[in-house]
This record gives sequence, structure tokens and C-alpha cells, in this order.
Amino acid sequence: MAVGNDIDDLPKNAANYTALTPLWFLERAATVHPSRASLVHGSVRYTWHQTYQRCRRFASALSRLSVGLGTTVAVIAPNVPAIYEAHFGVPMAGAVLNSVNIRLNAQTIAFLLGHSSSAVVMVDQEYFSLAEEALKIIEEKSKGNFKPPILIVIGDESCDPNVLEYALGRGAIEYEKFLETGDPEFAWKPPQDEWQSIALGYTSGTTASPKGVVLSHRGAYVMSMSGALIWGMNEGAVYLWTLPMFHCNGWCYPWSLAALCGTNICLRQVTAKAVYSAIAKYGVTHFCAAPVVLNTIVNASPEDTILPLPHVVNVMTAGAAPPQSVLFAMSQKGFRVTHTYGLSETYGPSTVCAWKPEWNSLPPETQARLNARQGVRYIGLEFLDVIDTRTKKPVPADGKTIGEIVFGGNSVMKGYLKNPKANEEAFADGWFHSGDLGVKHPDNYIEIKDRSKDIIISGGENISSLEVENLLYLHPAVLEASVVARPDERWGESPCAFITLKQGADKG
Amino acid sequence: MAVGNDIDDLPKNAANYTALTPLWFLERAATVHPSRASLVHGSVRYTWHQTYQRCRRFASALSRLSVGLGTTVAVIAPNVPAIYEAHFGVPMAGAVLNSVNIRLNAQTIAFLLGHSSSAVVMVDQEYFSLAEEALKIIEEKSKGNFKPPILIVIGDESCDPNVLEYALGRGAIEYEKFLETGDPEFAWKPPQDEWQSIALGYTSGTTASPKGVVLSHRGAYVMSMSGALIWGMNEGAVYLWTLPMFHCNGWCYPWSLAALCGTNICLRQVTAKAVYSAIAKYGVTHFCAAPVVLNTIVNASPEDTILPLPHVVNVMTAGAAPPQSVLFAMSQKGFRVTHTYGLSETYGPSTVCAWKPEWNSLPPETQARLNARQGVRYIGLEFLDVIDTRTKKPVPADGKTIGEIVFGGNSVMKGYLKNPKANEEAFADGWFHSGDLGVKHPDNYIEIKDRSKDIIISGGENISSLEVENLLYLHPAVLEASVVARPDERWGESPCAFITLKQGADKG
Repeated sequence: MAVGNDIDDLPKNAANYTALTPLWFLERAATVHPSRASLVHGSVRYTWHQTYQRCRRFASALSRLSVGLGTTVAVIAPNVPAIYEAHFGVPMAGAVLNSVNIRLNAQTIAFLLGHSSSAVVMVDQEYFSLAEEALKIIEEKSKGNFKPPILIVIGDESCDPNVLEYALGRGAIEYEKFLETGDPEFAWKPPQDEWQSIALGYTSGTTASPKGVVLSHRGAYVMSMSGALIWGMNEGAVYLWTLPMFHCNGWCYPWSLAALCGTNICLRQVTAKAVYSAIAKYGVTHFCAAPVVLNTIVNASPEDTILPLPHVVNVMTAGAAPPQSVLFAMSQKGFRVTHTYGLSETYGPSTVCAWKPEWNSLPPETQARLNARQGVRYIGLEFLDVIDTRTKKPVPADGKTIGEIVFGGNSVMKGYLKNPKANEEAFADGWFHSGDLGVKHPDNYIEIKDRSKDIIISGGENISSLEVENLLYLHPAVLEASVVARPDERWGESPCAFITLKQGADKG
Repeated sequence: MAVGNDIDDLPKNAANYTALTPLWFLERAATVHPSRASLVHGSVRYTWHQTYQRCRRFASALSRLSVGLGTTVAVIAPNVPAIYEAHFGVPMAGAVLNSVNIRLNAQTIAFLLGHSSSAVVMVDQEYFSLAEEALKIIEEKSKGNFKPPILIVIGDESCDPNVLEYALGRGAIEYEKFLETGDPEFAWKPPQDEWQSIALGYTSGTTASPKGVVLSHRGAYVMSMSGALIWGMNEGAVYLWTLPMFHCNGWCYPWSLAALCGTNICLRQVTAKAVYSAIAKYGVTHFCAAPVVLNTIVNASPEDTILPLPHVVNVMTAGAAPPQSVLFAMSQKGFRVTHTYGLSETYGPSTVCAWKPEWNSLPPETQARLNARQGVRYIGLEFLDVIDTRTKKPVPADGKTIGEIVFGGNSVMKGYLKNPKANEEAFADGWFHSGDLGVKHPDNYIEIKDRSKDIIISGGENISSLEVENLLYLHPAVLEASVVARPDERWGESPCAFITLKQGADKG
């Protein structure tokens, strides 16, 4: 027992030290608000008591199949209840969740499932044939060494029953039946070590193979708290799942929602109409969306929109910097847009363009320009800077000098799976290297000037494709714009724009 | 470098693992909102840039005197800027902050300063003679071995300049002069190990010597996030310091406020008038107060109150369970009262009576009764239960069976300083034992039935002094009531009430 003769001589014990993990949030939500809606999906509505029981059944069913520590469970699904439950059920069995992007082709999915050695593959009915195709590719490459994973198929009311029947005929277990094999009172084991892996997600590379980003219980805990605080997301928040949960684990919000005892609104398909009607029907307070989704929302036809909004709706966006015109249009409709930035390697967004009250009196265009910046570090990230790639020193905060954006701290990934070379490069010099180029403004806010590969070098000068895109978006007929480098005899490269016009816009 | 052939085989490195500490919050606030008000005290107003500079000066000045790792710095002060700055400056030097209750007598303070081996004593001018007396007691007991601590005296505009002059004549350094010896750009060192001690606070015992509760950087980090989330305290909160910062480090809110880039409003003296006028003048959104302060607020004379409130004001209360009548009166005035419970050993409150929307439609008296319970665990606490003291099993959730309230997890103290026996008792069986007796209701909310020492055993039956007090408070003439056990020939003990009447109430 602790002696404590010295102020630092008091060791950890069972009562005062527990591995940090977001899993306890679920147990708490079920204790505090057992009858509050945890999740709504079409006609399905679960309470926190039910969600906890379902996740314990899930963990128990996996454990009975010896799926636990060191094992990876892949999920291929849109935002249906099962993928939410997988964020708890899988790590509650000690295993690691590998959420797969449903937009990938069978070839890539085959690579992911093979590389991650996923022992279980859970797949939504709609994507069953895709998964089957991927598994066939693995089998063919394995030359007789193929150990088929446990296959679980997720059905719901909106799916074709024939597909479900087909899947069951191919040896898959139905998800609900699988849950029935588990114990709703299962004594799940929290991680012994908070550095234990909780999730694995693959980033798509344009040239090399996808890299498997491994996240820890500790990092997920820090990010779920930090992501709620940064966004003013309070107890009982109603969160709409427009952002795919397979994308960086939905930026850790599956876990935040449990911490806040909030309500998850699931959407199989994201349309402007579905977003507006969820806001009205469920009182959605928060949702995350890529700029392209914001674009869809602001350009929705009047019959799909419900305006004015019945209450303030907080929107978090990240990915490519959203066009200023889109940010402006969103705020005019009454959405409160928080602009963030991050990578899979930083548990999703880890910087935020923190809004300042003094911006309220600025012209809307200026507001949009300021808010289009990537901003400052999250509360849960300890280090963020822009460094000169040669000298490794921070660039001056002049809004001009371009350097690489680097991160450090507890919301940086554990590393890439089976990829020592990539780890060495990513973690060189004690930072995580984003590979994104940006500047630091005099107010300490960083701004991406471009992903390094998107810089167009024309006549020896760097041209930011983002800046050209921002200009194009100001044109009233432009719905979407993307600018790339085109080889040019005279200039080396010159910008080339691909444009989608708005409905009814004149192409002349 | 990490190989990552196995999903858990990715070691920590400088880029992805940093000791958890609330100190980074200050650096972040100064980066994000350098010109926002960090702290207001009378005519003094600091920005986050200034607060960060002052805290770095403080840490630097301490370091120059070799005050660092393993050293304790005592502060004896009401809620003035210096004690806020000490919450950062002291640990930024690697040292441990020992905040001393200013209401203690010289004898007890002498014990605290001696027991903690405080190498520096910072004292507010108003309490200088108290500190001097305490040091004299230590000197007398030391029999020639006395090594006087570095003495820093804190002055402000409201104090007597003669006292300051006297203090300087006794070898004390003035706080502002001390800061001048430090470097505002000091490269402070974050803790290498998050288990490092950040603070020490003494709990007063009724029979034994005070016990020194030691807290870690990790725990303080978790609690500052958790305490903000639990209370819906968002970015830019305006917090009024009615709760003394010397009391359990102001429940970790000095650190939360930096995380939220909020504004601290300091008060040397808490009066109802000062509270109401700060609400109106600074737009206070949150304050914490003991039930006795709430009592003062609800019973304030009309000329001291500003009603209706200009905006919603969130009040957190803890300590003895507040009388239901006081909770009711507060909510009628428009304060939103959150009732919490905890101990110095749990970093302040670690349970909350989480309000449920379904309570909104209940009669006010029922609301107050439900809200007077101690509730459920904080997000940052992993374990809370009521256990049968003999069998060590949880009591049934029947609202009747009394057991001991026990805690476990990351917001439980490291232990007591130099007190192995107390540590052994406190951490027996893998829980932290609160020593408080309570029940668990069918909705999983716990309720204190009494501090074990406050149970009155009358005719063999347990009588809760709290229940009797609650009844007394319902009487319109009662301002304050306290019930204790009185020896009784027939019953063994019987309840005895001490009562303060409201102004103008008829004693007949």
C-alpha cells in the first residue's frame, strides 16, 4: 500500500487508475438514461438500456467464437444501427474494429480484409455481393490457404429480403440471430492497457496501397471528450449521421454520443430532403458533413427544404476546405457551421476554426473567408504547427510562408499497421507529418494552401488549386468545381477546371 | 521505429503520446484567444495572453529559486488573481500546489505547512499575520532546525498598504515584484509522467490530523474536461468565483476555464449583492456555491438582488445536500441548479444529479426532492456504487438499503501524503471509501442518507439528521438548520436542532 512519504511516491492502484476508454460511456448512459432514445433508424428505435444490452450480446457472441484481443472485426455498412453497435460491441470483446469504406471496389476491399486479417466480416445486405466478391479474390490469391472469416449479414426493413436469403444460403449468419447467441448481461472486460487498439481504418492512397491507421482506447477517449467540448455539444444532443461511421470512426462521435447520453439518428442514404426532415422530426442539434453535402443542402430544391429552421442546427464540416460561397449560404440559412480539419491519422478533425465573437460584426464575405481556414488545435491535441520542410523550424505567422502542417499529442494515431517505412516517414522528427501544406496567419490560425500533391507549378510559381476553386465557386452558375494541374508546353503546368453547373444554369 | 506487424505492436512515440495535463489548455487559450478576458478582479483585467505570460513568469521565477519537481508551494489566499495563476505557474515549474483554507487557525496552518514541507508560502496581504503566526509556531517547534520558506505576499487595490509594507519589512517578496524576476517567454516543461502530482489539499478531520490529498496531472485533466461536459459549460463561459479556489482546487474549474477559453470573475468576498451584480455586469453564465451561499442568495434583500435574471445562470452546488426548499427557491428565481457530490479525494464533485427532461412536468416539490439526490457518476469517473459494508456487495437499488458510497477510476486521488494507514483504509478492496452512507434508488441515482458520523441512533433506530433538517427548512421562518445527536437517557440519542431564523421572523 502507498506510503506517500514523498509527494510523488503514491503508486497507482485499482481504485484510482483505470485505463481510459470510451466504452464506460455506454455503461454510464444505460445507467443514467436507460429509457432515453439512443438510436433511431426508420421505424427502429432503441433506448440506451437496449443499446447497452445489444452491445453486450454482441461482445459476448464474439467472445464465444474466441474473437478477442488482437483480432480484427471488419464492418462494411452504411450508417445503420449495427455499425454503431460495432463501435462498442467489438472493443468490448477486446477486438479491434475495422470499418470499411463502402464505396471501395472489391479489389481494394480484398486487400483491406487480407491486410487486416479480419477474422469476422460484418456486411450490410446491400453490400453483400461486394463482400462476397472481395472474399473470392482473397480465396483465389491464397492458393488453398484460405480460412474464410465468420460472415455476418446485416438486414433491415429497407432491404431486399431475397438478398438476405441469398446471403444466409452462402453461410452468413444474420446479425440479429448472431446477437441472440450472446448474453445481454455479459461481463465485458475493459482494456487492461489504454494503449490497446480500438479501431483500424484504411486511408486511400493515390499511388501506394492503402495504409491501415491504428487508433487506441486512450486516443478515442480523449477525442470523444474533446470533440464534444470543441463543438459545444451538450448532454442529450441529437446527432444526425450524415458523416459515414466508416469514415475515421465517424470522427469519434459514436463514442461522444454515449458520453453525452444523446440520440443518434441513422440515415442509410444522405439527401437534402432526409436532412431537413430529420431536423424537423427529431430536433437534430448537430451533424457533420463533407463540403459536398453542404453544397447539396444549400442547393436543395424548395420542396425538399424546411426553412426557416425550427431551431439552431450545428454543422461540422471538414475534408477539403469548403468553398467560401457554401459557408456563406449555409450561415444565411441559419446553420451554424464549424469548420474543422484533420486526417484519419488524427482521429478525424483535430483542428477547428474557432469562431470569434468579434467576427460577428464583419461583412459576411469576410466571415466566410476567416471561417474557411483550418484554425487551431483541438483541446485534446497538444501540438500543432506549420514547419519549414527544410529547416524543420516553425514558419513565421505571416499568412504567407508555406510549410508542412504537423501534429503531436494524444489524438495522433498509434501508427500504420505492418508498414514500418510509412511509420518512419510519418513520425520523423517527433511530429506526425500531415503531408498538407499551409500557412500560419498572424492570429495563429493555420490555413491549408494545398495538399502537397495539389500544388500546380506554373511558370515556376506555385498556384493553389484551392484558391482557383474558391474563385470559381463565387460564380452563381457553379455547383461544383475541381481544379487540377494540366501539363502545359509553355508553363510546365497550368490549372484545368472541371465544373458541374447548377440545375437550369445556362452553359452558354 | 514501429513495425506494427501485430495490431497492438505499435509503441508510443514523441508524436503520438504526451502526458495528460491541464497545463496545455493555458497555452492553447493564449494562442486561440490572446485578447479575450481571462480574468477580471475589481479594476484588474487580464487577457489570456497576459495570463499565460504571467504564469510563465511565475514558473520561471520559481525555477530560478530551484523550486521544481517534488517541491510544494503553499498558497493562502481568497479568490484573487494570484491563486488562479498559481494553478498554472506552480505546476509549470514542476512543483505541487498546496492551497490552504484561509479559514483555518494558525495552529492548523502550521501543521499543514510543516507536513507538506512547503518551500514557498504565498500569502494574501489580508492573511499575512495568520501566516506569520503559523510560521512562528513551526519555528518554535523546530528547535533551531527551522528553514524559513520563501515568503511571497500578494497585494491588491482593496488591501491596506500598511500591511503590505509590514510584510515587506518581514522579508516577504511582493508577488508582482516576484513575477518581474521571471521570464514571460519561459520554456516551461510539461510533466514527463501524467501521474506526477499537481496539487495537494488538506481535508479537515474532526478527530485526527488533517489528511493531505494528493492529485495528479492526469486526474486534473480528466476532471477539467468532465466537469465542463457534465455542466454544459461551453467555449467562452463566464465563470464567477464564489467557490473558493483553495477548496479542492475550485473543483478543477481553474483548468476547465482555460480549456474553454472562458473568463474568470474573481471575488474577494462573496455576498448576495456581489453575485447579482457580477451576473448583470459580466454576463456570468456559471458559478459554484455551497448550499449556504444559495441560501444567502435566495434570502437576499430586494435592494441587493437583480431580478428577473438577465439570462440563464447555471449554478452548481455540492457539500451537504442542499435543503429542498432552497433548491426550489433557486429554480423559481431562474437559476438552473445542478446538484453534485464529491470529496477532496475525488477532485471535488464526481457525481451529478443529472436532470431528466421528464422531470420538467412534475410538481416543483417533487422536482426539488429528486434533485436533492447525489445522483450518478461523472463522465470522468469510471465506477460508483453503494456497498453493504459487511458483505462488500452492492446494495439493492431499492432506495432503502443503506450502504457505503464507494468510488473508482481516474478522478480518485493518488492518496494521502505520508499516511500509509489512511491510504490502506481508504483504498481497501479496490475502491475508494467515501465514508458516506447512502442508498441507491430504483433509477440508479444514489442519495446520501448521512455522513456515517451524522447518523443519530435513537432507540436502536437510525435517524438521518439530513431528513430532519429537510423538514425544518420547509418552515417559512427557518433560514438555517443543523441537526445533531444529543445524548438521551431513554433513547440513547435523540435529534437536537440548531436553527437560525430569517430576519424579521417571530421567535414566538
